[in-house]
Formats: sequence, C-alpha cells, structure tokens
Amino acid sequence: MESSEFKTIKNTDQPLPSRAADQISQLIIDRQLSAGDKLPNEFELAAYLHVGRGTVREAVKLLVARNVLEIRRGKGTFIAKHPGQIDDPLGFAYLKDQKKLGLDLLEVRIRLEPWVAGIAAAKADEKDLVILRENCSRVEEDIYGGVDHLENDRKYHISIAKCTHNLVVPKLIPIISYSVGLFGSLNGTSLLTETIIGHRAILTAIEAHDPDAASAAMKDHLEKNRSALLEI
Amino acid sequence: MESSEFKTIKNTDQPLPSRAADQISQLIIDRQLSAGDKLPNEFELAAYLHVGRGTVREAVKLLVARNVLEIRRGKGTFIAKHPGQIDDPLGFAYLKDQKKLGLDLLEVRIRLEPWVAGIAAAKADEKDLVILRENCSRVEEDIYGGVDHLENDRKYHISIAKCTHNLVVPKLIPIISYSVGLFGSLNGTSLLTETIIGHRAILTAIEAHDPDAASAAMKDHLEKNRSALLEI
Repeated sequence: MESSEFKTIKNTDQPLPSRAADQISQLIIDRQLSAGDKLPNEFELAAYLHVGRGTVREAVKLLVARNVLEIRRGKGTFIAKHPGQIDDPLGFAYLKDQKKLGLDLLEVRIRLEPWVAGIAAAKADEKDLVILRENCSRVEEDIYGGVDHLENDRKYHISIAKCTHNLVVPKLIPIISYSVGLFGSLNGTSLLTETIIGHRAILTAIEAHDPDAASAAMKDHLEKNRSALLEI
Repeated sequence: MESSEFKTIKNTDQPLPSRAADQISQLIIDRQLSAGDKLPNEFELAAYLHVGRGTVREAVKLLVARNVLEIRRGKGTFIAKHPGQIDDPLGFAYLKDQKKLGLDLLEVRIRLEPWVAGIAAAKADEKDLVILRENCSRVEEDIYGGVDHLENDRKYHISIAKCTHNLVVPKLIPIISYSVGLFGSLNGTSLLTETIIGHRAILTAIEAHDPDAASAAMKDHLEKNRSALLEI
C-alpha cells in the first residue's frame, strides 16, 4: 500500500524517538494490547527496538502526549483507557470563528443524532438502559442543584450513542458535542427547562424501543438548541 | 464552568511540562495564532510562563506530538498546518475487530456523505469545482496507472466535503474515510471500475448543482463499497 510506503519514507526523516514511538504503537496493535494492559518495561523495549533506554523514555513521553499510554507512578506504563483518543482531536479550539463552528456542529449533529437515537431505540438492551436512565437523572440533578450540567449533558448524549453498539458512533458524538461546551453561557432558564423535557422525551422513546419517536425527540431537542443559538 | 474548574484541578496534578503545554495552547488560542505563524521563542515563553527553558522545550515537544506545533530546523517553531488535528484521532488502529470497524464506519458514511454531497452540489463555487475535478482525475490516473489510489480516493472525498463550506464536515470525513484504507486488499478490478464510474457520477451531479443527483450518486457509490465488503 502506498500509505505504508509513505510512512516508511517519512519515518527515516523523523527523529529517533518519533520512530520508536511509531514502532511501539505498532507493537501495541500487533500484540492486541488493550486498555489497562501493561507495556513491556524499558529494558525489553530497548532490546526489542534496538535503541537506547533514553530513546524509549522519549518515545513513551510522546505516546503519553498522544494519549496512547499512561504512566502510573510506581506501577509502570499502561495502555490508556481510550488509546489514541484525545480531547478535541480535531483542534476545534484553534478555529477562529467559534460561533460559526457552533452552528456548523449543530448542522452535523441534527443530521446524525436523530438517526443515532433511532438506532439506539432499536438496539438498546437492559444494561444500556440502566446507564441511560442514570445519566439522564444526573443532568437533572445538576440543573435542579444549580450546578453546571454540561459535562453530564455530553455524557448523556454519549450513552445514547453507545446503545447503537456501533464502534464508531460513540467516538464521534463526543467530538461533535464539543458544541455543548461552546455555548455554556447560553443556558438561561428556558433552555434548562427544555434540556430536562427534551432529554426525558428521548429516554422515554428509547425505553419504549420506538425508533421514530426517539428520532423525532432528538431532532426536536437539537432544533431548540439551534434556535437558542441563533437568537444570540 | 465545571469543565474549566476540572481542568484547573487536573492541572495541579500534572507534571510541569504538561501544564506549560496547556498554557502555550491557550496562548495560541488567545492570540489567534494560526497555521504557519511563528511561536514566540524559548526565552519569551519561559519569561511569560514563569518556568525554565528546559520546561518550555519539553512542553514544545508535547505539542509537536499533538500536532499543534511543528519545528522547522534552523527556522524556529511554528503553528502546525492543522493545529491539534492528528492522523487517526479516534484511535481506530487500536480497535481489535477491524472488520466490524469497517462496516460500522460505512454505516456512518452512508448516513453522512450523501447529505454532504447534496450540500456540496448546492454550495460549490468555481474554485471548489476546479479542485474537485483535479482530485477526481488523480484517482483515475492512479487506477489506470496501476498505482494504489487510496490516498487520492480519500482526498477526493475530502474535497467534496470542503464544497459544503461547513467548518466541521471536512474534518470529519478524513476520520470516517479511514475505512478506505482498511480494505485496500479489496480493490479488485470490479470495485476499481465502480470507483471510476461512481466518482465521475458524483462530480457530474455537483458540477450541475443538482443536490438530489449528487446525494443519490454518493449513496450508490458507498452502497457498492459496502456490498463488496460484505462479500468477503
């Protein structure tokens, strides 16, 4: 494949720690190491990669920065919980026009999330529903308690995505729900009430395994969010 | 906001270079530095962040690993072309079931890309179309030349996404077209012919500013890809 040739060419230009980091990544993939597994120690890696321990240490730092590895003090180096997945992976924070970003994100969300809610209603099992109810209640508790609910709001949307049992959707939703945080200041009382009502309506439809109702409830919820944004 | 409070708490636990990296990120955002802009030098950053130059150097390394900065030898440190955006940001390479991943990605693509092609047909300007035609031809040249076309195939789909003028869509498409690379081995002759015909049909519809035709052509193209995958 051209892309892997390209990688090889690029690699020879890269500093040694970057190359070692790529090789460690490949090792993780080849050995099917997953979240929480321990990485072989520095000595083994140095011997395996034919590099010095200093290079291994630099490579591990790079992979920590990329959220592939995590260091637990006194315990060793482990595969991260969601290896390779970082906050704001598309660099949204670096875009200049944050208002357009918010509206463009909502456009994508309105296309994607009603569909996701529909699949969630069709596929959610009892275990999924327990988590969904819990996350729905947490948002309500935050709002009633006068505490910022945005983190739990995002988690609620992610838990809906997880009901689909699709590998990709739960990874995409956290990225596009970046918009939730952008307009935190917007959360006046009316949008807070809508959040509670909207989230409950989505939950009820998913519990009833009614894809059309779930889809419609999600669409309605996101449209109301968009209206609120447009009113600024 | 709770999330920023959380960040502060987390920061005090973090090693000094990580904290400095976060502060440099914030500086880039606050000063609206963009791709190709030069970062202030080590001395300035050390003074500004009240840390040593060694810490600044470590922080810069972390930000290079996260693709926020790039070092040009002898010239200095610059903001990366797509700051914060990395290859495979969702860590797809680390998922064990790559076949399910490919099918789940196609499910998302079939939901998203026909819609994207429709908006592209509505919004593409002359400048967009020039790039689109060029990228469409490149895929054909690769295929006729017996060269791997996957990299250019991905670029073609991204250039369609750029026609939408939505800030988010062109950043999402490269991620979900990760599936293109997954099934490189699949590219038998019939799928290659379909790629040429399918891509041309999408281009023709976008050039004609016909959203429905563009949408239908994209859907057909992706469905044929899915059928090929399911046949394995």
